[in-house]
Amino acid sequence: MAPKTTAEVSMDALYRIFTVPEAPDSTLGKIEQHLSENLEGFLASHIVTQERPLHEIEHDFAYSDIPEQPEFVSDHTDVLLKKLVAQSVHTASPRFIGHMTSALPYFLLPLAKLMVGLNQNLVKIETSKAFTPMERQVLGMMHHLVYGEKKPFYDRWMHSADHSLGAFCSGGTIANISALWVARNNLLAPDGDFTGVSAEGLAAGLQHYGYNRLVVLVSERGHYSLSKAADVLGIGRKNIVSVPADDNNRIQIKELRAAAAKVTREGGRVMAIVGIAGTTETGHVDPLEEIAAIAAEYNAHFHVDAAWGGATLMSNTHRNLLAGIELADSLTIDAHKQMYVPMGAGMVLFKDPSLVSAIEHHAEYVIRRGSKDLGSHTMEGSRPGMAMLVYSALHVMGRKGYELLIDTSIERAKDFAALIEQQDDFEVITHPELCLLTYRYVPAEIKPLLAEASAEQIAVITPHLNILTRYIQKTQRENGRSFVSRTKLTPPQYYREGTLVFRTVLANPLTTNEMLADIIVEQREIAATAPSLRKHIIDAAERAGLKTK
Amino acid sequence: MAPKTTAEVSMDALYRIFTVPEAPDSTLGKIEQHLSENLEGFLASHIVTQERPLHEIEHDFAYSDIPEQPEFVSDHTDVLLKKLVAQSVHTASPRFIGHMTSALPYFLLPLAKLMVGLNQNLVKIETSKAFTPMERQVLGMMHHLVYGEKKPFYDRWMHSADHSLGAFCSGGTIANISALWVARNNLLAPDGDFTGVSAEGLAAGLQHYGYNRLVVLVSERGHYSLSKAADVLGIGRKNIVSVPADDNNRIQIKELRAAAAKVTREGGRVMAIVGIAGTTETGHVDPLEEIAAIAAEYNAHFHVDAAWGGATLMSNTHRNLLAGIELADSLTIDAHKQMYVPMGAGMVLFKDPSLVSAIEHHAEYVIRRGSKDLGSHTMEGSRPGMAMLVYSALHVMGRKGYELLIDTSIERAKDFAALIEQQDDFEVITHPELCLLTYRYVPAEIKPLLAEASAEQIAVITPHLNILTRYIQKTQRENGRSFVSRTKLTPPQYYREGTLVFRTVLANPLTTNEMLADIIVEQREIAATAPSLRKHIIDAAERAGLKTK
Repeated sequence: MAPKTTAEVSMDALYRIFTVPEAPDSTLGKIEQHLSENLEGFLASHIVTQERPLHEIEHDFAYSDIPEQPEFVSDHTDVLLKKLVAQSVHTASPRFIGHMTSALPYFLLPLAKLMVGLNQNLVKIETSKAFTPMERQVLGMMHHLVYGEKKPFYDRWMHSADHSLGAFCSGGTIANISALWVARNNLLAPDGDFTGVSAEGLAAGLQHYGYNRLVVLVSERGHYSLSKAADVLGIGRKNIVSVPADDNNRIQIKELRAAAAKVTREGGRVMAIVGIAGTTETGHVDPLEEIAAIAAEYNAHFHVDAAWGGATLMSNTHRNLLAGIELADSLTIDAHKQMYVPMGAGMVLFKDPSLVSAIEHHAEYVIRRGSKDLGSHTMEGSRPGMAMLVYSALHVMGRKGYELLIDTSIERAKDFAALIEQQDDFEVITHPELCLLTYRYVPAEIKPLLAEASAEQIAVITPHLNILTRYIQKTQRENGRSFVSRTKLTPPQYYREGTLVFRTVLANPLTTNEMLADIIVEQREIAATAPSLRKHIIDAAERAGLKTK
Repeated sequence: MAPKTTAEVSMDALYRIFTVPEAPDSTLGKIEQHLSENLEGFLASHIVTQERPLHEIEHDFAYSDIPEQPEFVSDHTDVLLKKLVAQSVHTASPRFIGHMTSALPYFLLPLAKLMVGLNQNLVKIETSKAFTPMERQVLGMMHHLVYGEKKPFYDRWMHSADHSLGAFCSGGTIANISALWVARNNLLAPDGDFTGVSAEGLAAGLQHYGYNRLVVLVSERGHYSLSKAADVLGIGRKNIVSVPADDNNRIQIKELRAAAAKVTREGGRVMAIVGIAGTTETGHVDPLEEIAAIAAEYNAHFHVDAAWGGATLMSNTHRNLLAGIELADSLTIDAHKQMYVPMGAGMVLFKDPSLVSAIEHHAEYVIRRGSKDLGSHTMEGSRPGMAMLVYSALHVMGRKGYELLIDTSIERAKDFAALIEQQDDFEVITHPELCLLTYRYVPAEIKPLLAEASAEQIAVITPHLNILTRYIQKTQRENGRSFVSRTKLTPPQYYREGTLVFRTVLANPLTTNEMLADIIVEQREIAATAPSLRKHIIDAAERAGLKTK
């Protein structure tokens, strides 16, 4: 798979790569112009809609040798377009409503290029200068959005060397790990001869404080990154105790209370309780105030995973959905989700600016003690200036702009739910609270029977409905005109039987109700191409004693 | 600090942000053109050279309220240029030789914009499709560069769902944490009733295996991220045991052997030994083969931190400096350092493709079991497609292009060392092995005396030399024409007295010997502006009984 032509290898040639810009009429120059003038057009015309099987795509990425000879940029760009871009995912498409990735505002593209060209490293002032106070300000603004402290608070802490209102990071997973790291280190803090878990390790910490284990309590709808965090931090995945959710996918407070009591009774320590502000699968929000009360009772760290839902705070119409979030000791929010910023802009926020001292690090050549280097309070070291894109988005869209986007998204989700409910052959499985909803296709002759079916009958029929759901979702994806994702839920209306559903995220402002209606039509058409799967469902219903029309 | 003018808040206005491109003659359009046509010119003309104090810059980032009203892109861009860009750091400047950040090849800028526009999420195939095999291929190429396995090896493992040759991540810190996470989980693996440290936590793991602590051995020159890793992973910072380095900043094998024996004798377990391939401060490489032998003896994980030096493997001239790296169980390398890719492209590699199964994670809605989703074997979750920039850089520059860059950098460092040695008033403190060297200014009348000074005399004079070194470095930075960083070393020639030095990284291909000569002249001129600091040095020398001319 060697390039057809090879470029010169000489210091002159390399020097040119670093000093001579790509000509406007070069392959890359033209791509850039196309991106600048019509991003949606570029994506629509370069990304192949019909899906190629992965194993075929892998053929294009099969060689393991670094090419010996340089390749001309134009040749390489042709290859990139054909092999990589053509087979990438059109995440910005308004008809692709299965991801948490939306269209991007235009102005962020040139700004991203500027950010890359500036190539700052946020680990320290020396390699980022104004980017450091800028990032601190963005964290301050987000902190203010959540906690609403007064001006003197921010005047005092926002730019303080030994404090931090939060940290930028690549995404929600690192944010969640960071929050629980802070919680762990504050719980097993230095005490007398014990120099703290940070220095002495987890086993010594448990022993010193007399706990047999640390436990994190979270609803069964919690994100998998929490279990990853428990693994990384040495707490152990089994010590993420999963608390049953109610019929609306919200943690059951009674069960939470019982779980906390049980852990404590058995000699464990409730290290943290995690509330979810927007579950990944259905977008529901836990009762945060009630969780906060229990966390306070157990003197546990209260973390809120608002990776998706946090942006809702910018809507005065809907921010009450997250009531109690201001009680969180820490909070995760991803700007690359509902804040319309490109991938790679996660944040963790801390209510108390001194909380992060539990994870403070210094070194001789960077992040010296007393410096304002951000690296002394972050899990990551060197990292890019993504905060700039959040800074710009907050200014160019303003709170009111975000409010409008968020309000519109939730309305669109409600419209879509209403549309689905009008159909004879579709049903909503979870209704939108934020802009997520799940639904599925059910043959019209089966749908009325489900409401009256017993648990046994549902258990017989559901596996067959699941097969059809999977078939529709997969075929729709392969056709490439539109996309919904799928997940497995345990809906209360179906006796908690494992039920495959279409999962949709209605955050793309370019998605219209017409497009949503088209998706319903397309899914119905796909279902019609699988008469045998439909027949299995009807057979199963009859076997289960449900009378079909 | 409210914007002077505010944009309209309406769904139409927002819709335009997502659909109407920035006009070529808009402020942002012009910036972009300038970036495209003359990146160096843009940076040179927009970044203010003379340093403003940080507390002044902070005034521009002082408000904590998210602006209510949207702002016009053009207005916002003006503000960005004035407040942020003007006060950022010119990391690409060939006269800024104190960072590990270099000029970037031109073609990466439009490609970075393309990457941002595609906005793929590498956590799963569903949101990245061809980006997943592309990233796996880049990891395969890097693996091949280090380990040189044969084609069937890569045919079998590179695209295998349950295996992984490594992981992309934001930077070397996450890479080092990931490597030690894998090492920890493999050491305390499931065994009989014990379901492994991942599930049961670190305390249970230590107890099951009967170790009183896990220890990581690394030279005293190890990067601070290793101590951060020990904290995060629950091992404890004090269990990073620092082994003395020799006169060339390389780990002392005898001391390493003694430390490993001591840990084991006392009931601890040597979990990992870390070799450094390019220390952050001086660019020296540990004797990797000898470390590997000791790691094998203790059945410990052998990790190599080649964040900086790994790229040297692309030079056939110099790759022997890293002999033994192919024995590493895991390895960290940052493409945003000596591979000339923008910030945010760290990698960890694993010799054995099944090693990562110790950190495998799955969930119902993403990274399902058996899928090829990258997220099942990475510490991060959602993350951007930075691998594309590495892919392109490897193809456009080729191994031979990188070889030339690396060879030239090392030569330039040697030239600079020779130049410094010719001066009456400068001295090299550490000679370059890779392209890093450290040096300092010493008044001409003092320099000849240092070679004969006793430890006591050096102890008297060094603090005063340090003050001058700091003054020169700080003034030079503030003047903004050029930049070297500084760190504190304990040079053997000066009885290991804590000595401040100028630290330089000569990786920017645009740096010339003339620029280096200019830096010497500039530093000498700055030194001349501090007669009182020079006098203190001379006084101290006399006090110490050193006869000045």
